Amino acid sequence: MGEFDLIAQFFQRPAGQAVLGIGDDCALLQPAPGRQLAVSSDMLVAGRHFLPEVDPLTLGHKALAVNLSDLAACGARPVAFTLALALPEASAQWLEPFARGLFALADAHQCELIGGDTTRGPLNICITVLGDVPVVQGRSAALLRSGAKAGDDLYVSGTLGDARLALHCLHGREILPSAQLAAARVRLETPTPRVALGLALRGVASAAIDISDGLLGDLRHILRASGVGARLDTARALSLLGHGRNTADAALPQATRLACVLAGGDDYELAFTAPASARTAVEAAASRSDTAITRIGRIEAEPGLRLVDGQGQALPDSYASFDHFA
Amino acid sequence: MGEFDLIAQFFQRPAGQAVLGIGDDCALLQPAPGRQLAVSSDMLVAGRHFLPEVDPLTLGHKALAVNLSDLAACGARPVAFTLALALPEASAQWLEPFARGLFALADAHQCELIGGDTTRGPLNICITVLGDVPVVQGRSAALLRSGAKAGDDLYVSGTLGDARLALHCLHGREILPSAQLAAARVRLETPTPRVALGLALRGVASAAIDISDGLLGDLRHILRASGVGARLDTARALSLLGHGRNTADAALPQATRLACVLAGGDDYELAFTAPASARTAVEAAASRSDTAITRIGRIEAEPGLRLVDGQGQALPDSYASFDHFA
Repeated sequence: MGEFDLIAQFFQRPAGQAVLGIGDDCALLQPAPGRQLAVSSDMLVAGRHFLPEVDPLTLGHKALAVNLSDLAACGARPVAFTLALALPEASAQWLEPFARGLFALADAHQCELIGGDTTRGPLNICITVLGDVPVVQGRSAALLRSGAKAGDDLYVSGTLGDARLALHCLHGREILPSAQLAAARVRLETPTPRVALGLALRGVASAAIDISDGLLGDLRHILRASGVGARLDTARALSLLGHGRNTADAALPQATRLACVLAGGDDYELAFTAPASARTAVEAAASRSDTAITRIGRIEAEPGLRLVDGQGQALPDSYASFDHFA
Repeated sequence: MGEFDLIAQFFQRPAGQAVLGIGDDCALLQPAPGRQLAVSSDMLVAGRHFLPEVDPLTLGHKALAVNLSDLAACGARPVAFTLALALPEASAQWLEPFARGLFALADAHQCELIGGDTTRGPLNICITVLGDVPVVQGRSAALLRSGAKAGDDLYVSGTLGDARLALHCLHGREILPSAQLAAARVRLETPTPRVALGLALRGVASAAIDISDGLLGDLRHILRASGVGARLDTARALSLLGHGRNTADAALPQATRLACVLAGGDDYELAFTAPASARTAVEAAASRSDTAITRIGRIEAEPGLRLVDGQGQALPDSYASFDHFA
């Protein structure tokens, strides 16, 4: 199978909203007048971001999901994406399920593949997503990291730590009952980008980020960009591991549970802040987007991140966020 | 050096035209009303697209140049780009010149780095470029592959085959005098994206493509997309190898010269078509963009590609275009 057959067979589909899709030197989009364009790129490398033996169906999903998660964190509506793919070989057995997983998620978000590149090389998937953001009364409606204010509530969506816990199990470092491992593994391999929540939080949240490198590390990006600090209730955060189920059943050590929840990474949930006066609006946004959210702390004027347990007692913060080069 | 230090030290610069550049989940652009957005992604893999020992300064240039070349082929004005980079290690000695080469070309085209990703992995550079295309009287001004008509002239810009010839020499398969090798190597390592020519050809050329996989292979994309054929004067094409210098001086076998010119790849010149009635306008576009162009053939109604020598005698076409998976 040659390069162009590969593209034609697995990736070329009728153009959707794009003026011009796959097949020329560039794709062409016609942005709606007065809207902003959100752009993000994420690269996934075999052995770093996923196990080489991972099911290509879930890998196709995840490669796009991590990018959609960035759009979600900005409150941007997905529009289109490019896919650059380095493959050790052109195997239909791998490409067919990969494309199926990719397009299932793309179609669910009406996000169109408009171009890209294919080449031989160590397995590497690089996706660039493009999203749409309105401008309201002259101001961008995008959610940024820099808008958190002292007194704001701090929330996260969904669950935390399950992806890391699954990875520990796959590496043989922890043992979970098989049903729990299966549930955790879904969170690792087919994360749900919180696009609907991000859209619902426009005009409500003061700041947002997606949790890819671990809650504390990503939260620190909000604190730094906003020039504030935060107090975080670790008991509430802990309750988000498997929605509390793993905690109760698996008798995992507390240190493992805390580490997975606070610094696990690969969660692709949103961490966001909103004024305390907006609690009703936040709940309505969560409900409208059918997404669970949990209030886990508060933004404070004093810089730094303060971890407390369920009784309000200070806990040491010794959690490093994931860093590819540290 | 950690991931975020690496970004801050080598890649983060004050925002330019972008509403929001590097440092949040997404970058934000504000497209001009009524304009179209051209998008293209290219991935460069060590050992496939460049020799691992290549000077990082030229690699930074080339990684962006091959992407700008796609914008040039569409007649799009460069606006911004994202950079996703997988690196075996975070080496300042490599990153500093890489970033210097990258930004020198980016600045020359006022094309702003707005985001991306860095990760550890086998060296891989994936750039997505975004460009601006006007809509004139309700029609996109983009140059496409599909507009060639029987009777149109066929042109290429600049020189052809030097990049492949340099690669042959670096692999020890050919020998060139050192001054000629140096000149050919510049074409391999620091190709010039023909952005100014692409812009000048808007409204003049009927079809265009950039030559990355070899003249004949890329020309076939125009022929297929336009539903036409072409007659190509190989003697004229041959005169473009090193602007005729290598041909005269280096006594290379004719077969080698032909293969480099017709199927070499890595040229990043534009192949384009225009009505014979537009010759003056084509010459003016070339002159305005200070780019040499050469008329090398003619589009014909009969499908297929016919190669002829300087006397108009038919030559066999046995040249395959570059294919990563063939």
